Amino acid sequence: LKSDFEHYTYQLVLECGGNGRSEFDPPAKGNQWTTGAVGAPKWTGVRLKDVLQMVGLKSDAVYIGYYGKDTHLSGDPYKVPISRGVPIKKALEDESLIAWAANGKDLPLMHGYPLRLVIGGWPASTSGKWLSRIVIRNQVHDGAKMTGQSYRVPCQPVAPGSKVADQDMCIIESMPVKSIISYPRTGAIIKKNQVLEFYGHAWAGDQSVALVDYSVGFGNTWNPLELNLPVNPLAWQHWKGKVKFPYPGYYELWVRATDNLGNHQPMVVPGWNPRGYLNNACHRIAIRVE
Amino acid sequence: LKSDFEHYTYQLVLECGGNGRSEFDPPAKGNQWTTGAVGAPKWTGVRLKDVLQMVGLKSDAVYIGYYGKDTHLSGDPYKVPISRGVPIKKALEDESLIAWAANGKDLPLMHGYPLRLVIGGWPASTSGKWLSRIVIRNQVHDGAKMTGQSYRVPCQPVAPGSKVADQDMCIIESMPVKSIISYPRTGAIIKKNQVLEFYGHAWAGDQSVALVDYSVGFGNTWNPLELNLPVNPLAWQHWKGKVKFPYPGYYELWVRATDNLGNHQPMVVPGWNPRGYLNNACHRIAIRVE
Repeated sequence: LKSDFEHYTYQLVLECGGNGRSEFDPPAKGNQWTTGAVGAPKWTGVRLKDVLQMVGLKSDAVYIGYYGKDTHLSGDPYKVPISRGVPIKKALEDESLIAWAANGKDLPLMHGYPLRLVIGGWPASTSGKWLSRIVIRNQVHDGAKMTGQSYRVPCQPVAPGSKVADQDMCIIESMPVKSIISYPRTGAIIKKNQVLEFYGHAWAGDQSVALVDYSVGFGNTWNPLELNLPVNPLAWQHWKGKVKFPYPGYYELWVRATDNLGNHQPMVVPGWNPRGYLNNACHRIAIRVE
Repeated sequence: LKSDFEHYTYQLVLECGGNGRSEFDPPAKGNQWTTGAVGAPKWTGVRLKDVLQMVGLKSDAVYIGYYGKDTHLSGDPYKVPISRGVPIKKALEDESLIAWAANGKDLPLMHGYPLRLVIGGWPASTSGKWLSRIVIRNQVHDGAKMTGQSYRVPCQPVAPGSKVADQDMCIIESMPVKSIISYPRTGAIIKKNQVLEFYGHAWAGDQSVALVDYSVGFGNTWNPLELNLPVNPLAWQHWKGKVKFPYPGYYELWVRATDNLGNHQPMVVPGWNPRGYLNNACHRIAIRVE
């Protein structure tokens, strides 16, 4: 693989479809992620499209699906733990990689050594680990965790707590606009009139981030932050800012990203769904000024 | 009074300082208001300033305070149930009235018959009912419920659940920007592609409302509504809009007002305070589209 195809390195966001799940009410089953189920290493590999084109795509190709070397938790060697995929159009993007390295080093075993898919901006479950096989499908891939309720949200919005039939659930594609405050940690203590520098990342699935702003008044006003361009499409973007507080007290610093289509992050948990996906509510931290 | 002074009629917003109290967490003691502790009748009376000027104001006048005919709940005739007031500057505004009528009729007993103060845009507790006496003070009025924790918020913001010493509590003056959806009621059921007309009011204490917008996507985007000017200063303003939903499902309609200083209503409950005042979070209603 390394010798037959050109190598590319891209910084790409992988975020679990259920990042932020813990905030849904009523609660959704699954790993109770708070804010941390996201990262954006620099991935190195070959383009999935170069491999697919070498193999040859028929005109009826609709979807790709992956299979990995991981075994089912039951121990049954005939059960597939997960086999997901993406539409051909997404698979053929320049940034869709078959990768062997992250940040210049071989993939850690936990992250898919020796080889994984990297599909930036889509639920990380589309970026299959321990990759052993890719299938080209003439229908939407129906491998394990493609169907039923997995990585799907109601096709039409439902009231919190609703049960939704499998046929009314739709596959998640691009993840929504989101941001995180990396520094300082919540609970920071500063002096009045001290300049607090704060920074973090913002990303927007297949889109880019057009604006990041902040509020220290629960959203009564928003002020723009300094925002970098992405180093490549589907990378997250760095932002930073400074704030000072003239009076002591307890404050909350809220940060809100807006994508290039004009979609803001909501201040509240949006669209309840049975499995607790796509919570892109604003991140906020507490700051005590002394 | 009626024969000695000119009569004026103004539409003025009276809102309890604790309107919305029920949403604070941890909960705040007091009437667990949701959204309804506000109204804006047309009040008729004389200007407080005309009466004060007839009486004569000394140069050291700082505050007025009212006394009413109501008796203390204990039955003790020497205890004053409430005696609040406002700074002279607010008392001298054109719209500060000694009123005997609401919407063209004598005040109902519950609303202060025969005479009450009406101080638009400030906590309704400044608009003393069953008015019997007004005092002019050369200091901030210190009548019942002016001091301690009543109708006061922490001078500096505090963490939810904090105890705050009396000397660190400051008197609430102008109420913050707020709005309410009057129609439809939450839980409305409509057909897809049906045009839903919705309307309500918005107000902003001593300020005016510059913009009212709505979101059906938890604040991902906001669209402006048609907003009327106030009929007089300190009146609330009517707004209305139309929306339709192309797909069935459960939706939330959020409305957000912005005052002429650029302050938005927050989407979340702002600034926790011990007595649960000043919750001006956006109003939202649930809509089911069939």
